[in-house]
Amino acid sequence: MSMNSFGHLFRVTTWGESHGPALGATVDGCPPEVPVTPEMLQVWLDKRRPGQNKNTTQRNEPDAVKILSGVFEGKTTGTPIQLMIENTDQRSKDYGDIAQTFRPGHADITYHQKYGNRDYRGGGRSSARETAARVAAGGVAREAIKALVPGLEIKGYMTQMGEMEIDRDAFDWDAIEQNDFWIPQGPEQAQKWEDYLQKLRKDHDSVGAVIEVVARGVPAGIGAPIYNKLDTDLAAAMMSINAVKGVEIGEGMAAARLKGTENADEIYMGNDGLPHYSSNHAGGILGGISTGQDVVVRFAVKPTSSILTPRQSIRKDGSPIEVITKGRHDPCVGIRAVPVAEAMMACVILDHLLLHRGQIGENRGQIG
Amino acid sequence: MSMNSFGHLFRVTTWGESHGPALGATVDGCPPEVPVTPEMLQVWLDKRRPGQNKNTTQRNEPDAVKILSGVFEGKTTGTPIQLMIENTDQRSKDYGDIAQTFRPGHADITYHQKYGNRDYRGGGRSSARETAARVAAGGVAREAIKALVPGLEIKGYMTQMGEMEIDRDAFDWDAIEQNDFWIPQGPEQAQKWEDYLQKLRKDHDSVGAVIEVVARGVPAGIGAPIYNKLDTDLAAAMMSINAVKGVEIGEGMAAARLKGTENADEIYMGNDGLPHYSSNHAGGILGGISTGQDVVVRFAVKPTSSILTPRQSIRKDGSPIEVITKGRHDPCVGIRAVPVAEAMMACVILDHLLLHRGQIGENRGQIG
Amino acid sequence: MSMNSFGHLFRVTTWGESHGPALGATVDGCPPEVPVTPEMLQVWLDKRRPGQNKNTTQRNEPDAVKILSGVFEGKTTGTPIQLMIENTDQRSKDYGDIAQTFRPGHADITYHQKYGNRDYRGGGRSSARETAARVAAGGVAREAIKALVPGLEIKGYMTQMGEMEIDRDAFDWDAIEQNDFWIPQGPEQAQKWEDYLQKLRKDHDSVGAVIEVVARGVPAGIGAPIYNKLDTDLAAAMMSINAVKGVEIGEGMAAARLKGTENADEIYMGNDGLPHYSSNHAGGILGGISTGQDVVVRFAVKPTSSILTPRQSIRKDGSPIEVITKGRHDPCVGIRAVPVAEAMMACVILDHLLLHRGQIGENRGQIG
Amino acid sequence: MSMNSFGHLFRVTTWGESHGPALGATVDGCPPEVPVTPEMLQVWLDKRRPGQNKNTTQRNEPDAVKILSGVFEGKTTGTPIQLMIENTDQRSKDYGDIAQTFRPGHADITYHQKYGNRDYRGGGRSSARETAARVAAGGVAREAIKALVPGLEIKGYMTQMGEMEIDRDAFDWDAIEQNDFWIPQGPEQAQKWEDYLQKLRKDHDSVGAVIEVVARGVPAGIGAPIYNKLDTDLAAAMMSINAVKGVEIGEGMAAARLKGTENADEIYMGNDGLPHYSSNHAGGILGGISTGQDVVVRFAVKPTSSILTPRQSIRKDGSPIEVITKGRHDPCVGIRAVPVAEAMMACVILDHLLLHRGQIGENRGQIG
Repeated sequence: MSMNSFGHLFRVTTWGESHGPALGATVDGCPPEVPVTPEMLQVWLDKRRPGQNKNTTQRNEPDAVKILSGVFEGKTTGTPIQLMIENTDQRSKDYGDIAQTFRPGHADITYHQKYGNRDYRGGGRSSARETAARVAAGGVAREAIKALVPGLEIKGYMTQMGEMEIDRDAFDWDAIEQNDFWIPQGPEQAQKWEDYLQKLRKDHDSVGAVIEVVARGVPAGIGAPIYNKLDTDLAAAMMSINAVKGVEIGEGMAAARLKGTENADEIYMGNDGLPHYSSNHAGGILGGISTGQDVVVRFAVKPTSSILTPRQSIRKDGSPIEVITKGRHDPCVGIRAVPVAEAMMACVILDHLLLHRGQIGENRGQIG
Repeated sequence: MSMNSFGHLFRVTTWGESHGPALGATVDGCPPEVPVTPEMLQVWLDKRRPGQNKNTTQRNEPDAVKILSGVFEGKTTGTPIQLMIENTDQRSKDYGDIAQTFRPGHADITYHQKYGNRDYRGGGRSSARETAARVAAGGVAREAIKALVPGLEIKGYMTQMGEMEIDRDAFDWDAIEQNDFWIPQGPEQAQKWEDYLQKLRKDHDSVGAVIEVVARGVPAGIGAPIYNKLDTDLAAAMMSINAVKGVEIGEGMAAARLKGTENADEIYMGNDGLPHYSSNHAGGILGGISTGQDVVVRFAVKPTSSILTPRQSIRKDGSPIEVITKGRHDPCVGIRAVPVAEAMMACVILDHLLLHRGQIGENRGQIG
Repeated sequence: MSMNSFGHLFRVTTWGESHGPALGATVDGCPPEVPVTPEMLQVWLDKRRPGQNKNTTQRNEPDAVKILSGVFEGKTTGTPIQLMIENTDQRSKDYGDIAQTFRPGHADITYHQKYGNRDYRGGGRSSARETAARVAAGGVAREAIKALVPGLEIKGYMTQMGEMEIDRDAFDWDAIEQNDFWIPQGPEQAQKWEDYLQKLRKDHDSVGAVIEVVARGVPAGIGAPIYNKLDTDLAAAMMSINAVKGVEIGEGMAAARLKGTENADEIYMGNDGLPHYSSNHAGGILGGISTGQDVVVRFAVKPTSSILTPRQSIRKDGSPIEVITKGRHDPCVGIRAVPVAEAMMACVILDHLLLHRGQIGENRGQIG
Repeated sequence: MSMNSFGHLFRVTTWGESHGPALGATVDGCPPEVPVTPEMLQVWLDKRRPGQNKNTTQRNEPDAVKILSGVFEGKTTGTPIQLMIENTDQRSKDYGDIAQTFRPGHADITYHQKYGNRDYRGGGRSSARETAARVAAGGVAREAIKALVPGLEIKGYMTQMGEMEIDRDAFDWDAIEQNDFWIPQGPEQAQKWEDYLQKLRKDHDSVGAVIEVVARGVPAGIGAPIYNKLDTDLAAAMMSINAVKGVEIGEGMAAARLKGTENADEIYMGNDGLPHYSSNHAGGILGGISTGQDVVVRFAVKPTSSILTPRQSIRKDGSPIEVITKGRHDPCVGIRAVPVAEAMMACVILDHLLLHRGQIGENRGQIG
């Protein structure tokens, strides 16, 4: 039982602080003979990497991942894979004044109350920098999934940022990678989002966001009935990402407003000899087990608490202080949460593919 | 690693099907010398028990819990506690026609696709009846919490049911237990909710709901930094309840719309020598660790899929069928989800209290 | 993390005390569609059951197992299987005087020192009666193994009881089930063992034993490299049985005396196209992974501490007392440890078969 | 569930291969504010390090440990501690010829049969080099124990090496660190052991050994009743060390020969107001829980299989080959197993100290 791990058969433990020498992930349980190279993982790390455009933090690090174990001659061996990312751009001076101060909305105060001490530099363990390790681990998961279920695709995108929301009628899959916000919308919309965010930044403010992640091609029958339901594990995975305050599967919170007659996804047999559904309110999961439809997860991140507008707080000695967080921070952490959420989705789905194979073997419940 | 368990040091495994001889919970890791009797647990089971008013299913069972182990002379011994509830009112005839049919919105089809066989009677393992075992386990957790942190209080209530929403300005703690809906509102409101639900029932329909659970008096410093954050574990616990499609902590999904200047809970020292906060957008948790404020969790349940209005579906052989679910079903499962959610909250909080004591011992990070 | 569980994918949690209403096992992770009936499990429980011959305790209970969940129409469903054995012959009077007394060699004193209270009746949780639950769980494991690897056979036998040792040159597989001691020897030898044990009983004494368990037909490649090696898990499984003080794999402790030239099991290709070995010092396991040879585990149990000869001890208040344990006790617990050890072996091997299937899928490392 | 981890609350995951860039341990669950520096850990690594005397392998590496996370300003923070040891002296040429060959007595063949591929260089993951990571983790555990239970001491020593056995009547604690074999005997004995081993080396042979580890000062009440008994966890921990074939607690396998009258450790109250025992056949553990006596664990290692005497084996293609393992290998791995076993003992005891604190809090079962 490690409090810094997730997953059952595919188990990831992350380690490291924002301003220590390095951080990384110990990945245990990856099947053998999966092709994995640093270059394959780097693609995803580059997607998450800060300093790439003016909408994310200007901290600039290569985030180069090293594989220290578990891969031999370009293939996994089935033994633990150690992924290490060295911290190279640690401007500790920016953060030195927070040793004695608790920033509102940060984990400074709770870490102090729990542990009595903390690595305060850059948020230490609670920094979003920890998610780089998850992205690397997710890269391994993606390659393993590719070997198990070719065609399974995982993609995340933003659907809301403060007052800006996507237009679902103009949903464009191919546009997602064409803009800085990972929105499924054309360049005109992206420009509006950028204007909105730049204004917030100038106002020394930040804003929350909603991210949606979809897994397409997940075979029916993946998951488990009660406590490690596919949706339970996905909810935990997303909630474990920094700043996340809500998680939805399929219809999500809006299900509260629906009637049974509206919510039921009716079933019919398709020409492909598989069951199909008239709709996907369920988000691809019934009773904790995948239906074969798209698995749809959505989550909200709060606005980053590191803002230049002064906020009231206290010091370790209890004295009051007005806090301005200088440093280099994202005005909307939702942007960089997209590749992180994709990585978490990949890890959870691989884990359940392996669990299913372990407990059941080949999928057996045929229909028709 | 049991897929039917939750918790770390306080670990609950539930077992049993809706129409088998019995169901129950194996509770491991409860501290010794906690007073526990069947009567203490029965209080909570009675709260969840169906057949008590016309707004819940008419299935009528005593749901009497038996303690088979782990308690000696009225006190826990530190060894596993086996809680068993016998199924006495199993009208299997109501369900017999679903052996070959997949009800839309139910786990029938996914269980079949995963396992190849299933106990179809009354939903088998996927029945909400499983939650009775959780409520019993939660009763044990409540008693253990009482011994560890006197005054810690856990309470759940409905905040929405379809179109009906509570008026937060008229929030009344004491009213919660005065009505059939566990709403913090006066009898006039409760009557409106009842009228609304009875109309739905007559229309052969059902509706979703939102439940909120609050833990008051949780000491600061409880939780963990990354994957077993207090909020992560709570999200998983709630998402594991049948029909839940979304989970929120504090501000929840609405955080996406907020700015950093609005969302920050400012900190000041109280006269009691403890840190206080100007607001509780965080829902009592920062960085996965409790702040000492109310821990606030909210979740949505979908409308029950068991309705009398016909829906399109298929049989095991792939042939189409129109499904009407007769049986005895709640028009809104949210009502009975309230005691279940309280039980899950109790289990998670006890677990983290024990984990904190194990890893840290006495709380050490003083302020002021 | 349950301290009363073992196994990874096939996970068994036992519960219950010697003199409570019942005891049992919660079995999670059994594959679906395995034929399991109470009768199938009863075979093994009857093998362990006391009161069957004059060499074991005279406590006489049917030890009838009930299946409360996880089996439908005679087949497992993949959901948790609850196995319950009711305690029917609880002569509490025999044990009443030990409420205040710590019996030497028993867990009375350590349970008291750990928990502060305990169910002292019949040893409570520390009673060997708990092993009945394991035997039931092992019965489930055996049926699942049968479905996965037909022909895999697990058999235990005694090799030593005090001064009596088997003659390996006269090893007779078929004799094992023909005598009360589960020794692989003819009736003449069995009579000598019986005479020896009856003399000890009359002397108000007890004696230790060595049990060996062999799994034949385990496919090569089952296990794991480091902490959950097949031998590690087997050692833990055997050491968890009451009174066990030593565990050996293959050559065991005697390996300390061997030279490398003597110990190496040389490898050659058999006519069946599979690797064979000139000997089996390794006990069928190399680097934590099965070789395809017999898996051989051996363990020693201490003489039961419940004897009629007076021993010095203390009461809860620290005062000295001379203890005679009346009750009904086995003069050699090794006899009944045989079916328990077989059950543990079955559970561990099934678990690793499932783990291998989960992580690797089909065995892939071909030779030749 | 990681197959490369051990421990419950104090959880260690090792990673790395013999000839990869580095190996290490991810240590999760260490209490905060424990003073830990690389220098503190290096002491134990130096004890295990090869190349120090002519009785161990001549592979010469500094085995310098780096702390990459979880320690801030010389103290643990409660977050995961990453310990990395870079591999600097990898003479891959020595091992290149084994890519296609299975060495008898090694894990080469079983890794191949399990995974289909393997890092064959120097044994890859199955190399005893992995134990360096355990020793580093054990160093952290020792410091945490020091903070929790001052005076608790853990010491290992050899008691047998092939035909050589220690004379228990001449047991000398202080001599252990005065000789190359960690034997509790004077220099004259040590010289005899050295002569014996050098002769074996010249004969191109190797030999097995027995190691004993004692923990003195473990408080009564540490452990757990059934599957994670203190003895169960210790047995698993020792069996997980390379080449171990048998594990004993207290009397061990010899208990099989004892009578109940001989084996019982009688109890009396000492002048210190604590229970004492007339003997320690139990090895300090009753019912899985510590008695307060010395905890005594013993284990046997087989002779290393890497010898210069030719042995019959096969290649990957099934063809026969005579194998001589050149490389640099210990003629008796027992010597270097001593610090490894101490490290494992430290990890297990710390883990159970934390578990006890978590489940029970302060020790409560008073006597007298």
